[in-house]
Amino acid sequence: MDGILLRNIISDGKDCDIYIKGNVISDIAPAGAGRPDENYEAVDCRGKTALPGMINAHTHASMTLFRGVGEDICFQDWINKIWAEEEKIDDEFIYWAAKVACLEMIRTGTSAFLDQYWRVPAAAQAVREMGLRAVLSYVHLDHYDPATADRQRRECQEVYEESLSWPSTIGFSVAVHSVYSVSERQIVWAADFARAHGLKLNVHLCETEKEVRDCRASHGMSPVAYLDSLGVLGPDVIAAHALWLDEDDIRILAGRGVSCVHNINSNLKLASGYRFLYNELKGAGVNLCIGTDGCASSNNLDLLEAMKTAALVQKAWRCDPAAMPLDELFAMASVNPAKALGICSGRIEKGALADIIIVDTDSSFFLSRAPFMANFVYSAHSDSICSMICDGKFVMRDRAVPGEDEILAEARKVLSRLD
Amino acid sequence: MDGILLRNIISDGKDCDIYIKGNVISDIAPAGAGRPDENYEAVDCRGKTALPGMINAHTHASMTLFRGVGEDICFQDWINKIWAEEEKIDDEFIYWAAKVACLEMIRTGTSAFLDQYWRVPAAAQAVREMGLRAVLSYVHLDHYDPATADRQRRECQEVYEESLSWPSTIGFSVAVHSVYSVSERQIVWAADFARAHGLKLNVHLCETEKEVRDCRASHGMSPVAYLDSLGVLGPDVIAAHALWLDEDDIRILAGRGVSCVHNINSNLKLASGYRFLYNELKGAGVNLCIGTDGCASSNNLDLLEAMKTAALVQKAWRCDPAAMPLDELFAMASVNPAKALGICSGRIEKGALADIIIVDTDSSFFLSRAPFMANFVYSAHSDSICSMICDGKFVMRDRAVPGEDEILAEARKVLSRLD
Repeated sequence: MDGILLRNIISDGKDCDIYIKGNVISDIAPAGAGRPDENYEAVDCRGKTALPGMINAHTHASMTLFRGVGEDICFQDWINKIWAEEEKIDDEFIYWAAKVACLEMIRTGTSAFLDQYWRVPAAAQAVREMGLRAVLSYVHLDHYDPATADRQRRECQEVYEESLSWPSTIGFSVAVHSVYSVSERQIVWAADFARAHGLKLNVHLCETEKEVRDCRASHGMSPVAYLDSLGVLGPDVIAAHALWLDEDDIRILAGRGVSCVHNINSNLKLASGYRFLYNELKGAGVNLCIGTDGCASSNNLDLLEAMKTAALVQKAWRCDPAAMPLDELFAMASVNPAKALGICSGRIEKGALADIIIVDTDSSFFLSRAPFMANFVYSAHSDSICSMICDGKFVMRDRAVPGEDEILAEARKVLSRLD
Repeated sequence: MDGILLRNIISDGKDCDIYIKGNVISDIAPAGAGRPDENYEAVDCRGKTALPGMINAHTHASMTLFRGVGEDICFQDWINKIWAEEEKIDDEFIYWAAKVACLEMIRTGTSAFLDQYWRVPAAAQAVREMGLRAVLSYVHLDHYDPATADRQRRECQEVYEESLSWPSTIGFSVAVHSVYSVSERQIVWAADFARAHGLKLNVHLCETEKEVRDCRASHGMSPVAYLDSLGVLGPDVIAAHALWLDEDDIRILAGRGVSCVHNINSNLKLASGYRFLYNELKGAGVNLCIGTDGCASSNNLDLLEAMKTAALVQKAWRCDPAAMPLDELFAMASVNPAKALGICSGRIEKGALADIIIVDTDSSFFLSRAPFMANFVYSAHSDSICSMICDGKFVMRDRAVPGEDEILAEARKVLSRLD
């Protein structure tokens, strides 16, 4: 077989045939109008809708097995608990936790993600085996300890070299944990390293009010201004959270071309805040994405759930029911993160990467006269996503993901060893 | 067969056998310890968890087919659109829309609900056929028109008389739409009628800031004080929304024994507000419940989703990650609404009504060291609910609900006639 033909699938409101050859969408034709071709595996998609696979712009995949470690506690207590847990992890933990994360992302419609964690090669192996697309970053978090900083620089360099042999679906990038947990020297080194090698740089930025207050006390400026003063910010930087911003911060982020990632569920659950300045950031021209954060805070990897919550919370605190329109919301989970990550996906069009989810609308949730996207975001759940193609191959078909039982069993073993 | 035996099911953290005889839980024994009895249909529930069927304390079931009628518009524009749509509906619409609502409730774990709408006998037939439990209220909404008021009093009386022959699973009650849409004379009549016949009374109360402002302008007092001045409030009253309250309102609601229903998704989406005064209401001793509101606003009937959003939003605006603890949250969807509605359910214990949901924890969402309820609310989705027993009978088994295809097909026909 040369490829896959999705027959009679709704895309952009039209009944289409979508041809996939290799890892790209090779053609989109009106349903039935295309050439019959025996070299394509034809899949009957009547009554189903195609969307680009969603892209999670900020997560920590291997923290999926830290889900539930600290429930209903404040950010500072929570992160201390997480840091204590992280002392225990090894490659096996990372590998199986990343597999669980990929399984959960596949089942909830996410075909690509930007990750920030350690032991990146073990995660890369898991992602490769699960067939997803990812940009995996090595995170610098030295707690101002020079020995840790040295080790992390060495490890970062090693993983970068290893990443040169990774498949095209998996990219490498660099992360700085935050302005409050990484020494200035290390921040600068990481940013220089990323720039020197053409890599993305991601960072937790202005997540809590305390972070901003402490940074102003230590450095006399906001975290955004501080990073900018170090020459860190630029179009390859992706800032997660970006919640506690002032006008100057927004001007700097827009001016430097930084992408920002809204992580609503994590911000709400840790009581970090809820007033994400969507209108102001968008108005300034910032590329805006959505993410789930890691399962230790959010507590799942379901972007559809995050989209609904983001839209509803934005409407409520702004007293504006039209806030965060649906097309812009879906862009935050598709074209915008694709742009941030520099990957040719997030849209269904000829020549784009074949990362596609197939939505089954044969349920009560789609009984409505509203546009598809309203039903998908406001009414349905991610279990309406029945199949996913990533990089031209099915990774889920009719809700079945190969290897699911083994992944759950092995993950339980890993979890039992943590106690 | 005499009944159902749920073998090896986790309830309250313990491995149990749950015996169901007729419509009640007749016994709960440690797993394997009970008498083997051929008269029970034994269902193997290993690896599954039993919870009481959830109770939706405020919805408009037949508005499920108004889903998507007005997206992303403000409350006043939205309700005007709804009222225009409601001119078109007939018994057939109500019947099939209520069937869709029941289907959706079953699939998301809700076994009982308090409804507020018209053409109640058509809805009652649908609920009976679907096997759910409900209290269905006839809603007074006269728009200050005496002829409408007369007709509604007559209809209310007629439905009440008809309701005397309904099965034990379906109760009748009375509703007053709101202080801004119903004449004073009608409000008093409805409250007197309810009291005279021992019926519950439910009302939309303090849903928007405008409602409170207008009521103060018209009556010189808040909607709560206004209803109290009319002698309406008492322990049989269930107030939906209760969002824009002051200290005096809370004192009155607590003093009268009114139950309040939090409808987070509806409040957020219509930008009505988000500061539900959970701590203050609970502190005053008010019985607090959770609801989804109708699908025209919220846009689904998924209580589990509503619970997560309610908890997360409460944590965020209070800057308190411990706000709305999980056990209290689940009580708002189980024992509290059971108390409000006067039904012996909402808990799994000997003698209670056999309204039970069975949760399949064999998925990534339950891979966690957190307590079950944290995983259920924060991580999982309602599709983890695999089966439901209502009034002693299975209404969903392994995600299959009898008649689902026909319901969806008939609902599509009804919808197509609306355009």
